[in-house]
Amino acid sequence: GAGLPVFHSADGEYTFKPRGRILADVGSTFGSDHDGRNITTTGMRALRLGFEGGVGTHFFYQIEADFSENAAEIMTAYVGWRDALSDDVSFDLRAGHLFNDRAFDGSTGSDSTAFLERNTVANTIVPERGYYGVGAMARAFFPRGHVSLSITGDRVDGDQSDSDSRTITARAHVNPLRSDTGALHLGAWGFDESLASSAQDLTRNTFMGTRFNGALRVSTGALEGGTGTTGYGFELGGYQGPIWVMAEAGQRLARRDAARPDFRTRAYAVSAGWFLTGELPPYNPRNGSFGQPRVLDPVFGGGTGAIELTGRYEQVAFQNIPQPADGWTATLGANWYLNSFTRIQVNGIYWQIDNATGPYAGSDSGQTLAARLGVTF
Amino acid sequence: GAGLPVFHSADGEYTFKPRGRILADVGSTFGSDHDGRNITTTGMRALRLGFEGGVGTHFFYQIEADFSENAAEIMTAYVGWRDALSDDVSFDLRAGHLFNDRAFDGSTGSDSTAFLERNTVANTIVPERGYYGVGAMARAFFPRGHVSLSITGDRVDGDQSDSDSRTITARAHVNPLRSDTGALHLGAWGFDESLASSAQDLTRNTFMGTRFNGALRVSTGALEGGTGTTGYGFELGGYQGPIWVMAEAGQRLARRDAARPDFRTRAYAVSAGWFLTGELPPYNPRNGSFGQPRVLDPVFGGGTGAIELTGRYEQVAFQNIPQPADGWTATLGANWYLNSFTRIQVNGIYWQIDNATGPYAGSDSGQTLAARLGVTF
Amino acid sequence: GAGLPVFHSADGEYTFKPRGRILADVGSTFGSDHDGRNITTTGMRALRLGFEGGVGTHFFYQIEADFSENAAEIMTAYVGWRDALSDDVSFDLRAGHLFNDRAFDGSTGSDSTAFLERNTVANTIVPERGYYGVGAMARAFFPRGHVSLSITGDRVDGDQSDSDSRTITARAHVNPLRSDTGALHLGAWGFDESLASSAQDLTRNTFMGTRFNGALRVSTGALEGGTGTTGYGFELGGYQGPIWVMAEAGQRLARRDAARPDFRTRAYAVSAGWFLTGELPPYNPRNGSFGQPRVLDPVFGGGTGAIELTGRYEQVAFQNIPQPADGWTATLGANWYLNSFTRIQVNGIYWQIDNATGPYAGSDSGQTLAARLGVTF
Repeated sequence: GAGLPVFHSADGEYTFKPRGRILADVGSTFGSDHDGRNITTTGMRALRLGFEGGVGTHFFYQIEADFSENAAEIMTAYVGWRDALSDDVSFDLRAGHLFNDRAFDGSTGSDSTAFLERNTVANTIVPERGYYGVGAMARAFFPRGHVSLSITGDRVDGDQSDSDSRTITARAHVNPLRSDTGALHLGAWGFDESLASSAQDLTRNTFMGTRFNGALRVSTGALEGGTGTTGYGFELGGYQGPIWVMAEAGQRLARRDAARPDFRTRAYAVSAGWFLTGELPPYNPRNGSFGQPRVLDPVFGGGTGAIELTGRYEQVAFQNIPQPADGWTATLGANWYLNSFTRIQVNGIYWQIDNATGPYAGSDSGQTLAARLGVTF
Repeated sequence: GAGLPVFHSADGEYTFKPRGRILADVGSTFGSDHDGRNITTTGMRALRLGFEGGVGTHFFYQIEADFSENAAEIMTAYVGWRDALSDDVSFDLRAGHLFNDRAFDGSTGSDSTAFLERNTVANTIVPERGYYGVGAMARAFFPRGHVSLSITGDRVDGDQSDSDSRTITARAHVNPLRSDTGALHLGAWGFDESLASSAQDLTRNTFMGTRFNGALRVSTGALEGGTGTTGYGFELGGYQGPIWVMAEAGQRLARRDAARPDFRTRAYAVSAGWFLTGELPPYNPRNGSFGQPRVLDPVFGGGTGAIELTGRYEQVAFQNIPQPADGWTATLGANWYLNSFTRIQVNGIYWQIDNATGPYAGSDSGQTLAARLGVTF
Repeated sequence: GAGLPVFHSADGEYTFKPRGRILADVGSTFGSDHDGRNITTTGMRALRLGFEGGVGTHFFYQIEADFSENAAEIMTAYVGWRDALSDDVSFDLRAGHLFNDRAFDGSTGSDSTAFLERNTVANTIVPERGYYGVGAMARAFFPRGHVSLSITGDRVDGDQSDSDSRTITARAHVNPLRSDTGALHLGAWGFDESLASSAQDLTRNTFMGTRFNGALRVSTGALEGGTGTTGYGFELGGYQGPIWVMAEAGQRLARRDAARPDFRTRAYAVSAGWFLTGELPPYNPRNGSFGQPRVLDPVFGGGTGAIELTGRYEQVAFQNIPQPADGWTATLGANWYLNSFTRIQVNGIYWQIDNATGPYAGSDSGQTLAARLGVTF
């Protein structure tokens, strides 16, 4: 984050910066047919402490732990090397515990998402091991886009009694049009995952709109016998002036043993935002994801900050299983950026969930109103 | 803590400071009728890492995690805003994972308590959710006191399947008399807590004098069916020159379902201290709590540091329940402050516990001798 | 580590430095008779965040937490005092959560070991409480060696229901010969541990060569009834120019109740290394352990870094028990130090394990190829 000075050694060879995030949420759900879903909860979306640094111009590292569930969970932790191949082309190589480069929303940090939560494409067209894995990633950056390729095993854990699962992931984006005030974004990505014998549980319980309501999940029921997953997706969007739009769609096929059919997940999402205060959307043309906006008139300088209105429709369906399930949400939101790295977010979410099993089986709908206060440093 | 420089950005807009605490304890208990209570243990009272910072003069944040039980537990983690309403009156608003403003000892940090542990009022006239909750707090500061009001849900956790409990807390203190070398302190506080259906266990196991003897507890036995708690207390004390005294008393009523009577907790404590080396007690007139003393002649400058003698009597009773219990301790202690943020503490504790149930049922008494080495940075 | 500037307060009285380590591993085992052992895993050997600092010239502290198994585990956390007794003799006293001073490899940090893992002497001639304990340690440093003495209880934990175990440890080393380009190292150490009633499980599952294969263990089967352990060992080695050699041997006797014989562990290891690029081995004559090498021509300055070839033979035997077990490894390795605090390590390990019990009972052998990328800051 930008909220901290970067420390340099006297000879300028070393750089170092502490890192952290505090994202505090409160949310309330109402309108469900089930009392157990109409609950009000607080939660921390992220509580992070870490460091990043570098030596010279090529070597860099980062390590960050999250404490938001009152236990430590390691996030990004890697060492890397970056260099230029020509004036136009650069690359980096990183090894360690790596965050996926997968989908537009999925590649955006938790402190930079336009909504309280990432969309269904990012959250469901995903390897079983989730957003992180230990391994290596190569990225190449061109004037009009980037490509990445990674091979990773499991998340960091304490279990070494079985081989890791193996995931190969690739993503590319291009900006066929780009100006000082706009860009067109096209992206595609995919992954293939081979599941270890100890990781064959494919059960999904996917939150809709907010993670802080444990009863609000699109659920498959128990799904054993997974042997691998293959997923892919597409991104189409861009911005012109203060207005952005992004459409994403993806499909995942999870292979199962004993001649059972593939468990299929399909998801798509359409999102848009408008900076009322005239800022450009925080589109990062290097990575093809969102970062933090450059606020024109920060509150800390006596200004009004930046105000963004947002809207999203997203859908997910779990299919080809004994107990299929699906859900969708429509969200209206507002983001008030006090400066580039502090924000207040409010989301009003209409959701509909249809589960075939579980305590809330059947079709149900309702509303969730949730807010977040966040700072990244 | 004061043990670190504060980092500023080049333009002075950002400030940043790492935070940490190391409090290492060793203690031995003897004289109990039960061998299981006569044990010697080591422990870490606090092992903390964190950051604090600010942007401009109004915005500030803090995050700190504790590792003292060899697992991560999140402590204070908030973002806040502070401003002045007039030359005399200022306020702050904070949201996140907040430390209670509740009782004098309870509002004092673990690195600033005059004894190894806070008194029974702080430890037993407490919401079921404990010292921390996710929510918001407003504080107003006047020339002669302060008031605070907070509303919080549960602690940070990973459980989002049920609504949070809800706690409203308020505290005020005034200094009707105050001079350069003394102050009279009056305080009052209270809280009201509505318990979620998943948080109805009212069972208490309260340590007496030291937390590092798990067998030395005033215990209620299993107490189910809690629906809410209401607690309040009063503070009367002050200091004149190097001598301070503080009396606290409080009561908590825990409501139970099925027409069972309220579970009542009563506690009081009287404490005093004397800085032999002439320092003023570390009374903070802004918050109405103890901070770190200004040591006149620090050891690190070749001096003797500050030496404080302390004494305390405290009592707690769990009443109106099938298996009532009570206990008291009398403590003599000495604190040697090497400088303002490093200290060595020794406490000799005579304790008496009367439990109606559990492995150590019956009346029992004994002594605990415990010491701590601590640094805050 | 050296990868960070040290921060000083304006008056120079305080110093402060963040600390961290990222060690990322990948390893594959093949050639075993058991498929369950022929696995490929990733893992993080260390993921650490912490701080160290001091006040004046005498007082210092350090705190560090590890997140490598996706949970927090506290490592070194202490406060200390150091002073000189004469021009030649200095000492320090430390209290808190302390790393053993025990064996040459065992006293070397995880970021400085010549191989991916420490040798069998360090890993098996060890108190039941492991590498860390809460307590106090005194060290005295002479021109030609050092001695240390410590008394510690258990590791940091949340269990205070029973007395801690108690361990007394001592170690000494001398350099009878020493020049600018070489040293002869002699060392001896021992410990005596009295086990608490809650810590009588003596079962051992010791990894061979790599910790990231949970099936590759020299295992005793269940061993209850431990009442104490006594261990000791010897170190003989040194370096001349870029070549070093170190031999270690140790024995541990674990006392058992009910007149059962002592459980005996014997281990030895012979290691050697050669810096092809001409660096001196990172022998620290003050502590008698390895640190980080001074790389003559770092990669970050356009050089080649330092390259070291290594070899080791190690053996361990668990004896005098119903189901004895033993194992040995022969390792060839290479370390490429990009600069003093970043390294790439590769180890090829031939291992042989003979367990009397467990899923892989019988004699078995195979190979493990493992690599690590590491940075310390």
